[in-house]
Amino acid sequence: MEIWRVKDELVCTRRAPGLKSASLRVLQGQTGNIQVATDPVGAPVGKWVFTTLGSAARLAMPDPSVTTDLTICGIIEGWEE
Amino acid sequence: MEIWRVKDELVCTRRAPGLKSASLRVLQGQTGNIQVATDPVGAPVGKWVFTTLGSAARLAMPDPSVTTDLTICGIIEGWEE
Amino acid sequence: MEIWRVKDELVCTRRAPGLKSASLRVLQGQTGNIQVATDPVGAPVGKWVFTTLGSAARLAMPDPSVTTDLTICGIIEGWEE
Amino acid sequence: MEIWRVKDELVCTRRAPGLKSASLRVLQGQTGNIQVATDPVGAPVGKWVFTTLGSAARLAMPDPSVTTDLTICGIIEGWEE
Amino acid sequence: MEIWRVKDELVCTRRAPGLKSASLRVLQGQTGNIQVATDPVGAPVGKWVFTTLGSAARLAMPDPSVTTDLTICGIIEGWEE
Repeated sequence: MEIWRVKDELVCTRRAPGLKSASLRVLQGQTGNIQVATDPVGAPVGKWVFTTLGSAARLAMPDPSVTTDLTICGIIEGWEE
Repeated sequence: MEIWRVKDELVCTRRAPGLKSASLRVLQGQTGNIQVATDPVGAPVGKWVFTTLGSAARLAMPDPSVTTDLTICGIIEGWEE
Repeated sequence: MEIWRVKDELVCTRRAPGLKSASLRVLQGQTGNIQVATDPVGAPVGKWVFTTLGSAARLAMPDPSVTTDLTICGIIEGWEE
Repeated sequence: MEIWRVKDELVCTRRAPGLKSASLRVLQGQTGNIQVATDPVGAPVGKWVFTTLGSAARLAMPDPSVTTDLTICGIIEGWEE
Repeated sequence: MEIWRVKDELVCTRRAPGLKSASLRVLQGQTGNIQVATDPVGAPVGKWVFTTLGSAARLAMPDPSVTTDLTICGIIEGWEE
């Protein structure tokens, strides 16, 4: 499970129906790389989080039929970059 | 879910039957890397999009039996490189 | 299966329900990269371990419904960095 | 789906039974990296191709029980490196 | 499927039960990276091999319930580094 900082919310148009109404976050990784994740825990911007990817990302959603490949699984306390 | 810019459409021959008639796009990533994705949302060249990979890529297609590993899930508004 | 050194335990809040009560470890890889793994073997901090990822990470847990993507599978003896 | 150039055929011994009689190709990627793929489309050496990975690689084979993780899905026309 | 050289056998303690009695090899990749793989073909140290990863790694084992994510699928003849 990777560690990221929440950078922003994502505003998108023409969203695939499979994403349903899932909340989306822009995450920044340890090397500056950017990814988009579904967020079932309500992670605020600036917080450090960890994510699961692949089929585990869907299982971590309250609705496992959401077509995500990256889901926030928890907020980390006291993390130093 | 990764973020890409749509670079082009893909012209290919001897296509595997499992791809069916899916629309294909050439995408360019944040480090200049190139991938091919199936596109169910009709993303125009030049737009920023985000994708799901792995088994989620198939679930994001209207026909989940298409043998893709990368599918465009939405068009991002107001993204700065 | 990747090789890592156990760096720390992970303290987190607002944990996704799918993780249940799984023990979490912070691992450091060969290039200094950091990941979080579920730990069913009780690996002490400082030990070298190897992990499975993806769906195999869930199957390696005593409870395969835990929504992990990285699980410690064994402790390596006599590993030199 | 990644883009590669077909570099060679692969000669191997003690092949796992799960590969059956699948045709194997050595592919070279955009950064010079090398991988082995199963080839159901008959891609000639020197041609540019794109591949699916993971479980999609098996679904793209005429026999989806072949234990591959990378399958050639099509030959690209007019690709400039 | 990736290409590796067999570097060593792996000695480990507190092994996860899901690995059963599978033979483990330490592999070195093209960029010097190290991974651990299950070995159903009996690959000797020093030989070049190719592997499948993900769910295909389990299907390539004689017993597909072994919780591996990387399995040796064949020994390559006449490979030059």
